[in-house]
Amino acid sequence: MSYVLYYSPGAASMAVHWMLLEIGVPFEARLVDIDTGQQHDPEYLRLNPAGRVPTLIVDGEPRHESAALLMLLAERHADAGLAPAPGSAARAEWLEWMIYLANTLLPAMRDWFYAGSDGDPAGAQAVRALARRRIEHACARLDTHLADGHAYLAGGKLSTADLLALVLMRWTRNMPRPATEGWPHLASYIRRLRARRAFIEVNEREKLTEWRNDDQ
Amino acid sequence: MSYVLYYSPGAASMAVHWMLLEIGVPFEARLVDIDTGQQHDPEYLRLNPAGRVPTLIVDGEPRHESAALLMLLAERHADAGLAPAPGSAARAEWLEWMIYLANTLLPAMRDWFYAGSDGDPAGAQAVRALARRRIEHACARLDTHLADGHAYLAGGKLSTADLLALVLMRWTRNMPRPATEGWPHLASYIRRLRARRAFIEVNEREKLTEWRNDDQ
Ligand SMILES: N[C@@H](CCC(=O)N[C@@H](CS)C(=O)NCC(=O)O)C(=O)O
Ligand SMILES: N[C@@H](CCC(=O)N[C@@H](CS)C(=O)NCC(=O)O)C(=O)O
Repeated sequence: MSYVLYYSPGAASMAVHWMLLEIGVPFEARLVDIDTGQQHDPEYLRLNPAGRVPTLIVDGEPRHESAALLMLLAERHADAGLAPAPGSAARAEWLEWMIYLANTLLPAMRDWFYAGSDGDPAGAQAVRALARRRIEHACARLDTHLADGHAYLAGGKLSTADLLALVLMRWTRNMPRPATEGWPHLASYIRRLRARRAFIEVNEREKLTEWRNDDQ
Repeated sequence: MSYVLYYSPGAASMAVHWMLLEIGVPFEARLVDIDTGQQHDPEYLRLNPAGRVPTLIVDGEPRHESAALLMLLAERHADAGLAPAPGSAARAEWLEWMIYLANTLLPAMRDWFYAGSDGDPAGAQAVRALARRRIEHACARLDTHLADGHAYLAGGKLSTADLLALVLMRWTRNMPRPATEGWPHLASYIRRLRARRAFIEVNEREKLTEWRNDDQ
């Protein structure tokens, strides 16, 4: 199994990058800096016609969609235990969280950050207002779930849903209401996950210094 | 394995309803008419705090998110062959399409239909304009993929991705540019899927008469 990850620091690719480190599988990481527009290079567009990160080359084939890549990696490396096994009681819960994050929080984040370029700049303020409402609603939902004695989103242990959630929570850091403020159970979940060795490692590899625990 | 599906005619629940018929497993279907607001009944909110359809009761537990339910059913009823097997070459492609539909098209549809109630009505026009752009972009992307000699989205045969895609395409029927107009490969894909016995059956069960093939 060979993997090449195309990533941009702190982007959706970060969840996949972190996952590869959690699994401990060899991979190559190639930088596609979206701040300088490298996602529009013709060479990259051949791998990812939408011009987005991540792209993961899996056994020679370019694959996309961070949530799908996490699910694929969990399945290909079942030993790593990053998804409840098929047929287990927690499986439905895990699938539900993966899809909830993928179809509620991730698109709202896209709206928040890209309203003015995906759509008409004149409408961006309205799009971002709705996005903010949905993101804060999702934070509240996560907080309520975690308040209920859950240390992780699904199955009582770390899964791809937590990796995806944490990267999405990271994106709130400069929003009007960051995920670390005002949702106490969510804040302690964030601290717990940020302390993981592979999360610290992915920050170092992507040269990210913001949004780390104070003691790290 | 026991299933109870809470559905509203033609809603996201339709994909799950259709799936249950494709599998041929016994289930009970309970109507939650969203046009008359039944999703806000306290009794239903206990099963689905977000007040959405579908909810699928799986062995006594309420589960949500249409895309997650399709994936779960595909896994629990692998014999039905509605998802490429784990480890197969088509698996990554299938996961990618499921997530693409769940995080691009489905949220854009939510925006199109609910912009004025999910968000500030004053901003609804801007939100809907971006949603329309994304929906038409997704239709074009599906058309391009199907033009490439693909009869189905993933793995060369019918899968949950097609069931979800068709229900989403159905929602375009009263939009400015319906999926059946101007994207020829998408239009013939739609006709082919609409001819399936289980699709005809789900229309009958949900008492839907629009958006059927003329000869059926
Ligand atoms: N649904 C995609 C979204 C990917 C996405 O939007 N990535 C952003 C960065 S977080 C990107 O590539 N932006 C560059 C651009 O759109 O030009 C996924 O989850 O992989
Ligand atoms: N992400 C959810 C979306 C479900 C959803 O938005 N359903 C709509 C009908 S298509 C609904 O229940 N609307 C009623 C309401 O929001 O009040 C899923 O795929 O199951």
